[in-house]
Amino acid sequence: MPNILVIHGPNLNMLGIREPGIYGSETLEVINEQIHRHATSKGLSLQIIQSNHEGEIVEAIQKAYNTVDVIILNAGAYTHTSLAIRDAISAVKIPVIEVHLSNIYSREEFRHKSMISPVAVGQISGFGSYSYILGIEAAAELIRRKT
Amino acid sequence: MPNILVIHGPNLNMLGIREPGIYGSETLEVINEQIHRHATSKGLSLQIIQSNHEGEIVEAIQKAYNTVDVIILNAGAYTHTSLAIRDAISAVKIPVIEVHLSNIYSREEFRHKSMISPVAVGQISGFGSYSYILGIEAAAELIRRKT
Amino acid sequence: MPNILVIHGPNLNMLGIREPGIYGSETLEVINEQIHRHATSKGLSLQIIQSNHEGEIVEAIQKAYNTVDVIILNAGAYTHTSLAIRDAISAVKIPVIEVHLSNIYSREEFRHKSMISPVAVGQISGFGSYSYILGIEAAAELIRRKT
Amino acid sequence: MPNILVIHGPNLNMLGIREPGIYGSETLEVINEQIHRHATSKGLSLQIIQSNHEGEIVEAIQKAYNTVDVIILNAGAYTHTSLAIRDAISAVKIPVIEVHLSNIYSREEFRHKSMISPVAVGQISGFGSYSYILGIEAAAELIRRKT
Amino acid sequence: MPNILVIHGPNLNMLGIREPGIYGSETLEVINEQIHRHATSKGLSLQIIQSNHEGEIVEAIQKAYNTVDVIILNAGAYTHTSLAIRDAISAVKIPVIEVHLSNIYSREEFRHKSMISPVAVGQISGFGSYSYILGIEAAAELIRRKT
Amino acid sequence: MPNILVIHGPNLNMLGIREPGIYGSETLEVINEQIHRHATSKGLSLQIIQSNHEGEIVEAIQKAYNTVDVIILNAGAYTHTSLAIRDAISAVKIPVIEVHLSNIYSREEFRHKSMISPVAVGQISGFGSYSYILGIEAAAELIRRKT
Amino acid sequence: MPNILVIHGPNLNMLGIREPGIYGSETLEVINEQIHRHATSKGLSLQIIQSNHEGEIVEAIQKAYNTVDVIILNAGAYTHTSLAIRDAISAVKIPVIEVHLSNIYSREEFRHKSMISPVAVGQISGFGSYSYILGIEAAAELIRRKT
Amino acid sequence: MPNILVIHGPNLNMLGIREPGIYGSETLEVINEQIHRHATSKGLSLQIIQSNHEGEIVEAIQKAYNTVDVIILNAGAYTHTSLAIRDAISAVKIPVIEVHLSNIYSREEFRHKSMISPVAVGQISGFGSYSYILGIEAAAELIRRKT
Amino acid sequence: MPNILVIHGPNLNMLGIREPGIYGSETLEVINEQIHRHATSKGLSLQIIQSNHEGEIVEAIQKAYNTVDVIILNAGAYTHTSLAIRDAISAVKIPVIEVHLSNIYSREEFRHKSMISPVAVGQISGFGSYSYILGIEAAAELIRRKT
Amino acid sequence: MPNILVIHGPNLNMLGIREPGIYGSETLEVINEQIHRHATSKGLSLQIIQSNHEGEIVEAIQKAYNTVDVIILNAGAYTHTSLAIRDAISAVKIPVIEVHLSNIYSREEFRHKSMISPVAVGQISGFGSYSYILGIEAAAELIRRKT
Amino acid sequence: MPNILVIHGPNLNMLGIREPGIYGSETLEVINEQIHRHATSKGLSLQIIQSNHEGEIVEAIQKAYNTVDVIILNAGAYTHTSLAIRDAISAVKIPVIEVHLSNIYSREEFRHKSMISPVAVGQISGFGSYSYILGIEAAAELIRRKT
Amino acid sequence: MPNILVIHGPNLNMLGIREPGIYGSETLEVINEQIHRHATSKGLSLQIIQSNHEGEIVEAIQKAYNTVDVIILNAGAYTHTSLAIRDAISAVKIPVIEVHLSNIYSREEFRHKSMISPVAVGQISGFGSYSYILGIEAAAELIRRKT
Repeated sequence: MPNILVIHGPNLNMLGIREPGIYGSETLEVINEQIHRHATSKGLSLQIIQSNHEGEIVEAIQKAYNTVDVIILNAGAYTHTSLAIRDAISAVKIPVIEVHLSNIYSREEFRHKSMISPVAVGQISGFGSYSYILGIEAAAELIRRKT
Repeated sequence: MPNILVIHGPNLNMLGIREPGIYGSETLEVINEQIHRHATSKGLSLQIIQSNHEGEIVEAIQKAYNTVDVIILNAGAYTHTSLAIRDAISAVKIPVIEVHLSNIYSREEFRHKSMISPVAVGQISGFGSYSYILGIEAAAELIRRKT
Repeated sequence: MPNILVIHGPNLNMLGIREPGIYGSETLEVINEQIHRHATSKGLSLQIIQSNHEGEIVEAIQKAYNTVDVIILNAGAYTHTSLAIRDAISAVKIPVIEVHLSNIYSREEFRHKSMISPVAVGQISGFGSYSYILGIEAAAELIRRKT
Repeated sequence: MPNILVIHGPNLNMLGIREPGIYGSETLEVINEQIHRHATSKGLSLQIIQSNHEGEIVEAIQKAYNTVDVIILNAGAYTHTSLAIRDAISAVKIPVIEVHLSNIYSREEFRHKSMISPVAVGQISGFGSYSYILGIEAAAELIRRKT
Repeated sequence: MPNILVIHGPNLNMLGIREPGIYGSETLEVINEQIHRHATSKGLSLQIIQSNHEGEIVEAIQKAYNTVDVIILNAGAYTHTSLAIRDAISAVKIPVIEVHLSNIYSREEFRHKSMISPVAVGQISGFGSYSYILGIEAAAELIRRKT
Repeated sequence: MPNILVIHGPNLNMLGIREPGIYGSETLEVINEQIHRHATSKGLSLQIIQSNHEGEIVEAIQKAYNTVDVIILNAGAYTHTSLAIRDAISAVKIPVIEVHLSNIYSREEFRHKSMISPVAVGQISGFGSYSYILGIEAAAELIRRKT
Repeated sequence: MPNILVIHGPNLNMLGIREPGIYGSETLEVINEQIHRHATSKGLSLQIIQSNHEGEIVEAIQKAYNTVDVIILNAGAYTHTSLAIRDAISAVKIPVIEVHLSNIYSREEFRHKSMISPVAVGQISGFGSYSYILGIEAAAELIRRKT
Repeated sequence: MPNILVIHGPNLNMLGIREPGIYGSETLEVINEQIHRHATSKGLSLQIIQSNHEGEIVEAIQKAYNTVDVIILNAGAYTHTSLAIRDAISAVKIPVIEVHLSNIYSREEFRHKSMISPVAVGQISGFGSYSYILGIEAAAELIRRKT
Repeated sequence: MPNILVIHGPNLNMLGIREPGIYGSETLEVINEQIHRHATSKGLSLQIIQSNHEGEIVEAIQKAYNTVDVIILNAGAYTHTSLAIRDAISAVKIPVIEVHLSNIYSREEFRHKSMISPVAVGQISGFGSYSYILGIEAAAELIRRKT
Repeated sequence: MPNILVIHGPNLNMLGIREPGIYGSETLEVINEQIHRHATSKGLSLQIIQSNHEGEIVEAIQKAYNTVDVIILNAGAYTHTSLAIRDAISAVKIPVIEVHLSNIYSREEFRHKSMISPVAVGQISGFGSYSYILGIEAAAELIRRKT
Repeated sequence: MPNILVIHGPNLNMLGIREPGIYGSETLEVINEQIHRHATSKGLSLQIIQSNHEGEIVEAIQKAYNTVDVIILNAGAYTHTSLAIRDAISAVKIPVIEVHLSNIYSREEFRHKSMISPVAVGQISGFGSYSYILGIEAAAELIRRKT
Repeated sequence: MPNILVIHGPNLNMLGIREPGIYGSETLEVINEQIHRHATSKGLSLQIIQSNHEGEIVEAIQKAYNTVDVIILNAGAYTHTSLAIRDAISAVKIPVIEVHLSNIYSREEFRHKSMISPVAVGQISGFGSYSYILGIEAAAELIRRKT
């Protein structure tokens, strides 16, 4: 059974509270449950972590080496500032699907540039929590192609 | 039955021939068939057009006014240069899902900037022809939310 | 009797529908009628065209060579992207009055730069459909000066 | 009877002498007379001032508060450098019509950027002294709309 | 008894009228009275001037030479454009406390850059008229340190 | 009794040792004592933390949600690089007062841009440890206004 | 017999009329005849098209796939704006020789950047209509090398 | 006897007090005397003014029209910000010699760009008060050439 | 016996696995052993740490205060983004030798700028693991100079 | 018999050795022979020099004054850095044809900008050693036009 | 008797021939004679060199070490490109007076930036060959000040 | 016995005299002796040259082709301006070690960009004359790896 790792970056633990006009009013727990249910229905084993620490996200990616098939990554604000996360992705060579709740291109200028996109397989953004569901679909497809 | 319009922009009629290392070796016909099958399975009515003319894409969007529920748009090279297509999207106020075969953020600098993203609902890029399938999924979700 | 050519660029056929907060709620037909009435009252012969195609606007300008006295041009989104229209204006050497419904300088950054302004006689922007009426006035003045 | 205030900025008192190839050979007195005549014919009360001092222009705008219906402003060189004039316009909330004798977009790069445009209703440039006449027309229209 | 000079720059005489959403609804007279009361309570002699003229602000700073202990300066729009005021501050070598009613960093891009900050002791911004009260506190502290 | 949270960012635990020409020779302990005394005298309950970890500062702000009235934040070097801290501030919607010991605008270019300013209420910088005292004053004022 | 396709872009149908100081006084018909004669003398089969439409140029390049040996392309104003033409060249993988009548590097800044050069074999510019003759020579050489 | 006008811009009345390490310790009175003596010895009639007001400098240049042969201008901080002074120079068409006490190119970046240089005859900078003496020499030469 | 501290930044614990074409195929353990042996042979006491956390690197530098003679720092991706590490170096005033395995100047644009270089003594980059050996040599020299 | 001067700039004496994937495997001697043969066949007298010194190229151009009809210049790396060569071309007013072996626009960014193009008649690049043959053809045409 | 070294940079040996509209019609010999005569009249010993080679100018400056009192340097095109000449000036610590025949600030953008100005004492530009005479005057003044 | 070529660029012959605060007080002769001694102790044959001429450095690198194993290059000011030296390095394909006495990243902005770094193996900077000794060590390592 293929392994999927979902990483939620900084401030995503505040979902529901945090700017609901932009990020929606569901809490992270509710979203995680939806992701879990969808992954299971697709025959995928799933692990989810959330961290507000750049270094922890780097290490979560490092630990995925040789054990995880696809990473679904919403790096939050670190998307736009972290080269360390980018380097971790290049180091482990696991396919990464970049996911965003909001459409980062219709927001502030500094959110238009992702440090992670160039080393990701692809990007899904703007569909609220459904971005993660599409990420699971895309992960399933990537695994199908490999096999 | 909700209506989906898929618009393929310039040079997408060359798929299969055009830089297969980047865009894959499937022809547009094959891809269109896959999209059709998926849309039908989701209970969506689908129309597909391809054009190499900026003005024709503008007019396809205009004609969709009041008849189409969601547009799935891969504007090809016009993604990065066309304000007229952007204005057409703003004019008709139909939700647009921006789709790309390749990961535009791992290619030339000038492909990193999309004129269309700021007025789209969201973006899906980098999954080859499967980007369109994810686009259909996203369209179905947008329609579910409205009803 | 002097000849005036009014060219409406892309998406102006959507007036009334298109973002009425910015562009007003009159349709293009209503505006054209007003322009016609004003031109007639000034003793000017008037032709009006609308096109969503850059190439058609280029050719409308080319065809005006030797037959039109003043062009009133609202190039819409092509204002900010089309060097081909600019070159057509330089080629035919007919005086061009650049017109905009909205004040392009109080909108998005990318609308602040007009490719056409440097080769136009002058610019009128921000007065809604009345910008065209002022354009007719200005055209009449340019013709008065020549004679 | 509605009140119009025309403000001529720095060096416009040198008209006739100042670079006639760009600004024309009429003196400011001659132009002011034409503006007066046109305003009167439109049933508008008119006051005209000229100043070479940024602070005086700021104060002229401040004094217009609650007494003037439309300001026609040619801020000359201050167009491109004065945030104080811009702030004065925002403070009094009187509609401002920005006017230029020359086409500022076909001149030096630094004249392409107006600090005032974003807070003006609209802009008229490039028609020589006739730009003011068009400004009067536009002012009359703005007043018509309000009533 | 130490001398404090408060300088209000352009358009601050319009407080109460001017964009109350940004600047508050108190008039400058009311604010000046509050500043006076606070300065007196701190044992500071206070002089307040307001000017819309860059040159007058330059000269107010020059005249302060050898007679004023601390200047509290809200240069308004000149904050972002005036090198002459900056040079005046460097010339007299009196400590300057830069004060703003609004948070200039959450407004338009051009208000983010202050010409004066690099030669000021410090900056206080965003607390409405209370910014001046904090400025008085800071001035008192600067005087305490000197003695 | 209102709650104030003071957050000292990276390297502020080195005060007294760290570049005393810029940051002064008082240790953080001494400064914290002064802040405490001042807050108490203003009837404010105070908590102080220091961290060199971006993620810890993010979480300190998150934990303040619903329990803290005003945050006084000196984010040190993270001021200029951390979007995660900025997003945390937006998420909890607690008013933040940005504080700096040094005048960041008279130092290296890269210190002139604060990521945090646009989402803070206001900024106080350049008064050494007294910047915190002014921050307490400003916090007291913000609380007064709310009640 | 090898096939050469010559594509003239927008406004080149205006040659003779269009800014003769820059582009010369020969009409396109005269130039085409010269090109034809030269190509024939080199044993090359030649087809010439002119279009003012970006989409038509894209399609002319697409149609050349598998039937044309070398394209000689003067994309006129589209040289500086069209990524769609660039993508068409990459798609068909036919060697393209970029040709300009004028020296684009001694003209306006915006003409210094060609979107097409990076995917062309080489560039010839500045020799008036003789640039095309040199293009034919270069095409003949490219064909010689292949055989 | 030819007429020379020397204009000292903002803060030059503070010479002697103002940053003597950069501007020297002579007062403006002493320097003016030296200039006077030198001009007289060269058979030149001399007028000297100093102003801290941009508008006054503009008007001093305007008044020089038809009565002054050469202007020696040290516009101080307005050198780097004033387009109004630049336009005044272009308007009167009197040759202007730009003079600076300090070497503006070895100081802050923002002092490297002069708005006035492009419309001046030439520039002399970096020789302290002797820059003015060289300016008188240059003025004498310009007058010699005309006669 | 002088103390040397070697700090390996983020993802350097992945050496051997991580992009061996760029970083070589030796693991960090092997490299650390080489460094140890070389330091010992030079009569230097050595401590080595690796961290993926910006805050931990900041604190490792802080803890070195007064106990370490030279720091050899390969900050990995934080080289290009961390002002906090830079400030820590400035705070402790221990000489820092910046080291990189790869030649950062022949890689992506964003790796060309080091935040740390301006406060380091010097930089050694591009020699693979031997960069550390050269770093030890350089450290020995710095210690020799001090004594 | 008209005189042509061919100037080869720095490192062109290394042809055959130097990056043959970019510059081809022919030596400069072989290329020079081809150029000679072609020039002779066109009735042109030819002189060829190669230099690695900017100053020598400047002087070769200077010496060509009044004796050479057309210069064919491949300035190698000096193309992108030498204003002195550009000034020499402007000084002697001999028509210059700029030639490059490689397509400089498909290489590193810094090779896209030629200092020489704006003062050359035209440019030929990307055809390997055949660029020189086309240069001879172009030179012959320039001479034909003059006579 | 103090020693002055005048250095003429590249293409100044072409004076009289070279763009006389910009540089005047006097030859370098005539100008050198004028400079000599003026220097002698001021009691200065003078040496003049001209070189088209950056390296030779560097070495001329190096050789001046300890033997020359003031250098008058017109580095021609190297003014804008040569850091080596700048470093030579810093190395020998002889005062340098930068001189230009033309007003470099009213010419092409790339001539507005001098690499040499920041390390020169001052700059004189725009007075034709008389710039050198003013340079001699300035040199005499610098020597007067030292003694 | 492997051959090392050390190239000292412009102004390095002035060491000892030239800004000793930055470059140290040793003369080049003393440094060369140290380098020689170190190279000999490592079993390396060494040749050293110094030149102030860009062209000579280009040719020194060209002559090294096939005879030199490693080049140690301190290109001085040409580091930041010379593409010709860069191209020479690419042409001969000898490994180059870039060396600087000072830490170029803590100096003026224009010294932060090296044209040579991208084609060098690695860079050593900031250790004074010991940078060369480290360069010898690095060269020895490069030779060890090859054998």
